[in-house]
Amino acid sequence: MTRTVIESKTKTVIIGFDEPFCVIGERINPTGRKKLAAELEAGNFDTVVKDALEQVACGATVLDINSGAVFTNMMAKDPRYADNNFVEPPLMKALIEIVQQTVDVPLCIDSSVPGALEAGLQACEGRPLLNSVTGEEERLELVLPLVKKYNVPVVAISNDDTGISPDPEVRFNVAKKIVQRAADFGIPAHDIVVDPLVMPIGAMGTAGQQVFTLVRRLRDELGVNTTCGASNISFGLPHRHGINGAFLPMAICAGMTSAIMNPVRQQEMEAIRAANFLMNHDPNGGEWIRFSKVVEAVEAGSSFSEASAAAALMAAGGRRGGRRARG
Amino acid sequence: MTRTVIESKTKTVIIGFDEPFCVIGERINPTGRKKLAAELEAGNFDTVVKDALEQVACGATVLDINSGAVFTNMMAKDPRYADNNFVEPPLMKALIEIVQQTVDVPLCIDSSVPGALEAGLQACEGRPLLNSVTGEEERLELVLPLVKKYNVPVVAISNDDTGISPDPEVRFNVAKKIVQRAADFGIPAHDIVVDPLVMPIGAMGTAGQQVFTLVRRLRDELGVNTTCGASNISFGLPHRHGINGAFLPMAICAGMTSAIMNPVRQQEMEAIRAANFLMNHDPNGGEWIRFSKVVEAVEAGSSFSEASAAAALMAAGGRRGGRRARG
Repeated sequence: MTRTVIESKTKTVIIGFDEPFCVIGERINPTGRKKLAAELEAGNFDTVVKDALEQVACGATVLDINSGAVFTNMMAKDPRYADNNFVEPPLMKALIEIVQQTVDVPLCIDSSVPGALEAGLQACEGRPLLNSVTGEEERLELVLPLVKKYNVPVVAISNDDTGISPDPEVRFNVAKKIVQRAADFGIPAHDIVVDPLVMPIGAMGTAGQQVFTLVRRLRDELGVNTTCGASNISFGLPHRHGINGAFLPMAICAGMTSAIMNPVRQQEMEAIRAANFLMNHDPNGGEWIRFSKVVEAVEAGSSFSEASAAAALMAAGGRRGGRRARG
Repeated sequence: MTRTVIESKTKTVIIGFDEPFCVIGERINPTGRKKLAAELEAGNFDTVVKDALEQVACGATVLDINSGAVFTNMMAKDPRYADNNFVEPPLMKALIEIVQQTVDVPLCIDSSVPGALEAGLQACEGRPLLNSVTGEEERLELVLPLVKKYNVPVVAISNDDTGISPDPEVRFNVAKKIVQRAADFGIPAHDIVVDPLVMPIGAMGTAGQQVFTLVRRLRDELGVNTTCGASNISFGLPHRHGINGAFLPMAICAGMTSAIMNPVRQQEMEAIRAANFLMNHDPNGGEWIRFSKVVEAVEAGSSFSEASAAAALMAAGGRRGGRRARG
């Protein structure tokens, strides 16, 4: 049984075939978010705090922390800021510290800069997920030693020095190579979470079936957990949330065990919670029944994040009340 | 390749592994609809006409016609009306005639009364789907000769004289027995559409996984198409449409090829249309893009059935326009 254990100081999340789907919140990422990048450059972490709270309230059980910012003003003053090896390590440390002060879920350290990955590993309490290694030789040699040294699980993306293959057979073999190389470092398969790479269905009609087939093979033949950037599937199409909301249950039915995604969206989160129930990973539908109250509040006029936050607060209050009553 | 061909006078629908999911509209059914039963008793078919039009506009490609009415007033005057063998055959004929005058999709003749099935077979133009045979000896002996005589496909429900088994292995074996018995009558497997029976997930946590596993086995081992009463899965639970909307894509991903369901519901139809796209059964997403206009109209304040009817009318107008332009 494949179980990938991720931990914060106080919480354990298990990615596994017999676990509820692991939602890794993707929002804390300055790539393509100019306003957030500008805030971070000014040392302002308000949006980060807000995004951390909101994502956890909406159902993320792990938060991805991406430090890929471009600090354009600083770059104009100091050329060292043009180098992400200079910018990202201290930014990753700062992001992780602020997020750990704000929420108690495990983190996923996300950077293409090895120095930022190591800065993140040093700053993280518990056992974070490292994001990511690929099949590229340089990445294998830089990242796998960190995975081994810090004894953490790692996301393995199925591209290599030849790029991203449109052929799912090639992507499977890249994943297999990564798992074998990790084994050479003494890293077990259950600490590798493979991203088989999701192509846009609008550009490639077989994109969905590729993922469903790959996920099943990765699980059956390599015994690994899987993840993906879920929203890639609907890139460029109208009413993307409708496509994402069908893709996620289908991927879960095929065996996908986690996704890096925006949890502040009702349609996707509803699909995942229903899929958990349908996979028998929500005993007696307790989570579904709680979630249906959030849906009712949204139907009555709340935003999804407000309704989710109110429900989370009530659940926490209920638990505290319970402890006091026993005390 | 398993292809179940269903026809009206002018339209062909194929249920198959490489076809869009076949939505069989379930609304024309007086069971549990007292108002509709009272209308039918009074010879009023207004609701039937409305339901036929609405379901086809919303995306049903086949309409189920169920004649299971109880005519309480007539029963008080004439005891023969207590017998469904007396009530249903003429009612089935009348329902089919009115629906065939209203819409052009193929029909599914649905009754537990053999006389009503035969009355329906006589009234139907084209090649309807017969609903249903079970593994019960009496049903096999009554229904399979009709299937053979009229050369039509049939829904096979996986219960037998011992009832509905909670054990999916038993239900698989009932389906297998029906397929074998049909073969004895010269009826091919591609004319059997198996309903593996969907249990409520609220009562049985394994209900979802049972269906996904059964559908795959029925397809791989017996080579048959499959159907189900989709909404059974969410019986008794809050926010049922959310559960149905995840169940359908998961069932489709597992290989389910049709469902008997209410098509006048956006959440379920959106899930199916997205799943068709993701299974590569919607070339270039043309259907999805058309559907996204319906979603936009709903977001702007239309009801789903109004928006669907408007879109259907526009598509028909566009086609007529096209023909005129070429003429």
